[in-house]
Amino acid sequence: MNEYGEFGVIGKSVPKKDGKVKATGEAKFGADITLPRMLYGKLLRNGQHPHARISGIDTSRAEKLKGVRAVVTGKDFPGILYGNFAHTRDYLPLAIDRVRYIGEEVAAVAADDEDTAQEAISLIRVEYEPLAAVFDPEEAMKDGAPLLYDNKPHNISSSSNFGFGETEGGFRESDWVREETFKTQNIKHGMIEPHASVGLWEAEKITLWACKQSPYIVWRQMAMALGIPPSKVRIVQTYVGAGNSGGKQEALPMDLCAVMLSKKTGRPVRFVHTMEDVLTIGHMRHSYKINLKLGLKKDGSLQAVQIRAIADGGAHSSIGQLSIFLLGMFSLAAYRIPNFKYDVFRIYTNKQWPGALRGHCGPQARFAFEALMDMAADDLGLDHFDIRKKNALHPGDVTPNGFKITTCNLTEALDKVKEVSGWDSKKGKLPKNRGIGLAVSAFPTGSNIMGHTACSAMLKVQEDGTVALQTGATDVGQGCDTVLPMIAAEVLGIQAEDVSFAMIDTDVTPVDPGTWGSRVTFYGGNAVKIAAMDARNQIAEVAADLLEAKESDLVFHNRRIYIKGNPDRGMDLEKAIRHCQNKLGRPIMGRGTYNAPADTVEFSVGKGNVAPTYSFYAQTAEVEVDPETGKFDILSVVTAHDGGRELNPMLVEGQLVGSFVMHQGQATFEGIERLDGQVLNPNFLDYKMVSSADLPDNLSFNSVGVPDPEGPFGAKEAGEGASAPALASIANAVSDAIGVRIKSLPITPDKILEALKEKG
Amino acid sequence: MNEYGEFGVIGKSVPKKDGKVKATGEAKFGADITLPRMLYGKLLRNGQHPHARISGIDTSRAEKLKGVRAVVTGKDFPGILYGNFAHTRDYLPLAIDRVRYIGEEVAAVAADDEDTAQEAISLIRVEYEPLAAVFDPEEAMKDGAPLLYDNKPHNISSSSNFGFGETEGGFRESDWVREETFKTQNIKHGMIEPHASVGLWEAEKITLWACKQSPYIVWRQMAMALGIPPSKVRIVQTYVGAGNSGGKQEALPMDLCAVMLSKKTGRPVRFVHTMEDVLTIGHMRHSYKINLKLGLKKDGSLQAVQIRAIADGGAHSSIGQLSIFLLGMFSLAAYRIPNFKYDVFRIYTNKQWPGALRGHCGPQARFAFEALMDMAADDLGLDHFDIRKKNALHPGDVTPNGFKITTCNLTEALDKVKEVSGWDSKKGKLPKNRGIGLAVSAFPTGSNIMGHTACSAMLKVQEDGTVALQTGATDVGQGCDTVLPMIAAEVLGIQAEDVSFAMIDTDVTPVDPGTWGSRVTFYGGNAVKIAAMDARNQIAEVAADLLEAKESDLVFHNRRIYIKGNPDRGMDLEKAIRHCQNKLGRPIMGRGTYNAPADTVEFSVGKGNVAPTYSFYAQTAEVEVDPETGKFDILSVVTAHDGGRELNPMLVEGQLVGSFVMHQGQATFEGIERLDGQVLNPNFLDYKMVSSADLPDNLSFNSVGVPDPEGPFGAKEAGEGASAPALASIANAVSDAIGVRIKSLPITPDKILEALKEKG
Repeated sequence: MNEYGEFGVIGKSVPKKDGKVKATGEAKFGADITLPRMLYGKLLRNGQHPHARISGIDTSRAEKLKGVRAVVTGKDFPGILYGNFAHTRDYLPLAIDRVRYIGEEVAAVAADDEDTAQEAISLIRVEYEPLAAVFDPEEAMKDGAPLLYDNKPHNISSSSNFGFGETEGGFRESDWVREETFKTQNIKHGMIEPHASVGLWEAEKITLWACKQSPYIVWRQMAMALGIPPSKVRIVQTYVGAGNSGGKQEALPMDLCAVMLSKKTGRPVRFVHTMEDVLTIGHMRHSYKINLKLGLKKDGSLQAVQIRAIADGGAHSSIGQLSIFLLGMFSLAAYRIPNFKYDVFRIYTNKQWPGALRGHCGPQARFAFEALMDMAADDLGLDHFDIRKKNALHPGDVTPNGFKITTCNLTEALDKVKEVSGWDSKKGKLPKNRGIGLAVSAFPTGSNIMGHTACSAMLKVQEDGTVALQTGATDVGQGCDTVLPMIAAEVLGIQAEDVSFAMIDTDVTPVDPGTWGSRVTFYGGNAVKIAAMDARNQIAEVAADLLEAKESDLVFHNRRIYIKGNPDRGMDLEKAIRHCQNKLGRPIMGRGTYNAPADTVEFSVGKGNVAPTYSFYAQTAEVEVDPETGKFDILSVVTAHDGGRELNPMLVEGQLVGSFVMHQGQATFEGIERLDGQVLNPNFLDYKMVSSADLPDNLSFNSVGVPDPEGPFGAKEAGEGASAPALASIANAVSDAIGVRIKSLPITPDKILEALKEKG
Repeated sequence: MNEYGEFGVIGKSVPKKDGKVKATGEAKFGADITLPRMLYGKLLRNGQHPHARISGIDTSRAEKLKGVRAVVTGKDFPGILYGNFAHTRDYLPLAIDRVRYIGEEVAAVAADDEDTAQEAISLIRVEYEPLAAVFDPEEAMKDGAPLLYDNKPHNISSSSNFGFGETEGGFRESDWVREETFKTQNIKHGMIEPHASVGLWEAEKITLWACKQSPYIVWRQMAMALGIPPSKVRIVQTYVGAGNSGGKQEALPMDLCAVMLSKKTGRPVRFVHTMEDVLTIGHMRHSYKINLKLGLKKDGSLQAVQIRAIADGGAHSSIGQLSIFLLGMFSLAAYRIPNFKYDVFRIYTNKQWPGALRGHCGPQARFAFEALMDMAADDLGLDHFDIRKKNALHPGDVTPNGFKITTCNLTEALDKVKEVSGWDSKKGKLPKNRGIGLAVSAFPTGSNIMGHTACSAMLKVQEDGTVALQTGATDVGQGCDTVLPMIAAEVLGIQAEDVSFAMIDTDVTPVDPGTWGSRVTFYGGNAVKIAAMDARNQIAEVAADLLEAKESDLVFHNRRIYIKGNPDRGMDLEKAIRHCQNKLGRPIMGRGTYNAPADTVEFSVGKGNVAPTYSFYAQTAEVEVDPETGKFDILSVVTAHDGGRELNPMLVEGQLVGSFVMHQGQATFEGIERLDGQVLNPNFLDYKMVSSADLPDNLSFNSVGVPDPEGPFGAKEAGEGASAPALASIANAVSDAIGVRIKSLPITPDKILEALKEKG
């Protein structure tokens, strides 16, 4: 920042730093890692039994195949259950005596080449004794239903049950009360980089090179599953393909098999998932049945909210305890809600398991909530904007569960989308079969839930005036490889190109929660800012001496340090660094750690300020339905967002577009299809996603944010949050167009035609 | 350290940390680095011309050979001279228009395999026009001698000329004055790991994986030679084979050719030197002609010292300006010298060039000085011990050039070797043909000469109570991979095995001068200690709260934190870390930087306290000469050393033994042999080194050190210093045995027989 408060880097659309290496092909993704003497691994999956006992595994024919170096089964591991939270540990590296879903890993092979490994897999004989399976969560909760885990009655994988205020009283005092049930489906991340990892077991260290978005989660889980201290494990992050969006958080069977096969062979072993693997095994979005009851006064003010939700948990817990908790949190944000009751259950079924996915249950929560808000407005004769403004959160609000709202331009966002979308000229005035829908949402900036939350950064300012930055943050396409360097650059008066961004190596880089929950720019950015300020102060002390000035009068700008008001009295940063390092023996290293002023919130209590700040979104969607085919087009989408200051508007817009479009898919046609627990569409021909041809003609994003006082240079969550209103705005628009409410996703032509038929 | 001041780790002979991975073969040395699509590089050397103009290079036949991917010559580089000091830059990656020694690199090839690369090399035609060559430094200084560099009159590569006091007056006041000339030879490090590196030129970074002892020197030199900022270069250190002892400091033609061939091919390129390469090209020990004049009073007190020395510099400067300066420094240490005059010249000749080697001109300096001290004692009728004790430095002394002597047990060392060697029962009383010799020396702990001198360390204390340590230090066999972790472990009350030690990656690890000059334990160790204290303070603040105690009452010991006097009131370190990190959001990262309280000494001035402290050595050697063959055996060697507190006695002893034995070789038979600039013994059959069979029966090392107040846990230089008295003690013993002084090294049977013959 110069002496006039003008930023040198912040706020500029600096191209993403990895553009060049990704364009040249130099960027090494998971499957690109090749080590000398490396073997190729393949997994044997349970191919047909949704639930079965394993009575025997015969690997002898596979072991005898020429070129096969080792075979492992579940018994090669210590048999320790691992997972995310103490009460939800239910993963094993390989199934031992039971399989619980089709696709579950049963054995693995390492061979000289992939074909041999694949052939060896086909030679392994597993004897299964089928068990009764259960696919519907509500069925699974009933007495007498088959249990997936003997110690989990009613197949409850996890739950959250809490309330604030007097919901019953709230409903009694309401003029309008309605309860509706909404259903959402499983969708996949649709990542185009498959999971890939290379394992190497050595005397002193077990190393995994892998495309992981949260290397330290994998670090802990691998140590847990192997029964060793985490410091014996080293995770080296490769480039992570964009679009993993929550799908590369955890240690997978392939990771643990890679290191165990390496232990057996003394050689590195690489696994790469096929797209069928990616699309059948876990880490999809939770499907929900959400029973939502709202109570409002005639003036539109919310009096009470009651939610009972059931999530289909599939065969494993994954991070699902957090997911179901967040559904409640997303229901609590955006509006002033005096009374709130929440009961959610995550139920085991004999299916592939869900976990985190972009938006992480915000979209589903808003899909239900915003539908009922429209119904209330319509029934009470209120304008869709007015009812939302009536209830909208404002700066200074504290929600009953404890969210402290600091910066909040939700009202401004509503005004903005109303204006830009031309709502007044459209709502109720559109031609037949066209409709416009509105939704709002809020999004926490990070969340203090998963144990360790702080971020750290280390940087060294080098003798050529550049910075080598180390953080715990992983770029997964979202742009922290560029934004975190921008923050360091701004503080030190250099450019983003002057700052290198280290990939994660758990032996070296700072411990970090990982990339999830829209936390990186805020937490990691603040850590980087503190580290850069630390370095700047060290330099300024010396430069002030050399320039005969006060430290507080120094400006760091344009790779120079000069005296405020006197740009000629200055020196190159490079020269100052050389002086510090070579003359004074003070190499410049900055260090920063940041933890947000937020509460650690317990899943069972739900009370507390989960994030240091929140972002707010308002969104309209306009659709046109073809009553003959039941298809609909999304004509335009207008979003206004308060995401604080946009540190790099181009990267923010990229995230906003991606977040919307991913949910356009969920709203319109995407979804995992199954028959008796078998995925029917495990490839990108049958599993269709939104492509560029499907994009709305008009996607308009409008920032109404103001700098957040706690965020680094005023940033807060900006990007992922655009996922939260997307299902709701589209569904509300369709409802407006056809006059019927479709309460389950996706809104397929069949459902529209049936609704139109029922309507007559 | 526990509450009773007992160390947990320091002072224990902890086995070297890399033992396991070196034993299993997991340690990756330079030549083990293999990357996908890697090519194999070979160098074309000037094979026969000590000095010639290059009138043409024809690479066309090589380029056409199947499997050859690229050929580079000097013209592919920007033509920038690089080197160590601004006034001594005379390296080019490849010769351009002139070769100056046999073995100089002229071209390089990258091919699919080594054989093809070698064949391609043989197809390159270079036209040379021979020039007059000069091999003798004194001849090279003369008017009219062929000049190696047109801008270097009299072939002076560098020089140092300075004095303190009034030498002439000192000699006038002396009762005994004598001037003698001593000659020493080139010896090689004899490293068993050849130089090896893999270069990769990518869009954003130029990476070199290489076995380097000072990666940041290579970092700077490569950037300089390529004309780019150093931050565009990344040096990743591989394991470095023990015994390189100064020979892997600098950027070599192979390193620069590896990256340039990678630029041309888009693929990584690996070079591995042959042993012939290693033994012919540079980085050997300087050979000297030393003219030493001493003046003493009758009582044995030194009055004046005058040195005129000429070093044979070969065709490049390397680090030689430092080398010749150090010869003077080593002459100044050990004794009280009121008047001192030093003139040294390093002269270019058409030979392979010398650089740094263990002891770095200390052994040569002491070889001359201790010989004259014996002569003086004999002439003045003084005891060899008494004359040395008379002049020995004491704590609190400041030498005329400014060395500040803090801890100094040189007198105690003399007493110790006198006792242990049985000197009194041997000197003058040994059977015919046996002799005993004495020498003393001092050794600086690091030296503030090469620009940046400070060391830094970063560490993170991990949630399992272990530490991940990053420093800028490279282990080259000396043991800093173990001793630096021991220092961190001692501070934090854990064990060395709990601390991992990161290899250098210039993109990540702290900038550092490198491993040379006995600086690492002291400078790096202090940085580690500061970083560990920083971490400990952060932990103690929290633990004091949890334990309801004062921070100053906390003891870190046995992986626990407890209250002084009450070991039961404590907690596991691991638990404290988890609390800090996960509950309080304070991941524990420690940072430390240390720069010694020493002066930056200019080569041309020589004044200043070059090191924060000095070590002292006394050594006796007992030999038996066979008058028939001229061979002699070293029967026993007794060393007493004041190296401060020995942090790891086993590792110190390893270094002491190595330092002595290396110089046993120089004293007895080692040496590069040349004819007209061609090395005649470029292999380990012809270049003989001391093997275990040659070791003295009795090698006794006796520590008389006291903890140095500035050193980490009291350490100072300990190990390399044992090199300095070795040539002298052996030479003095031989002189004692045969009654004739041999003033040139090595002391071969021929020289002994000739001396005996002359003596008659």
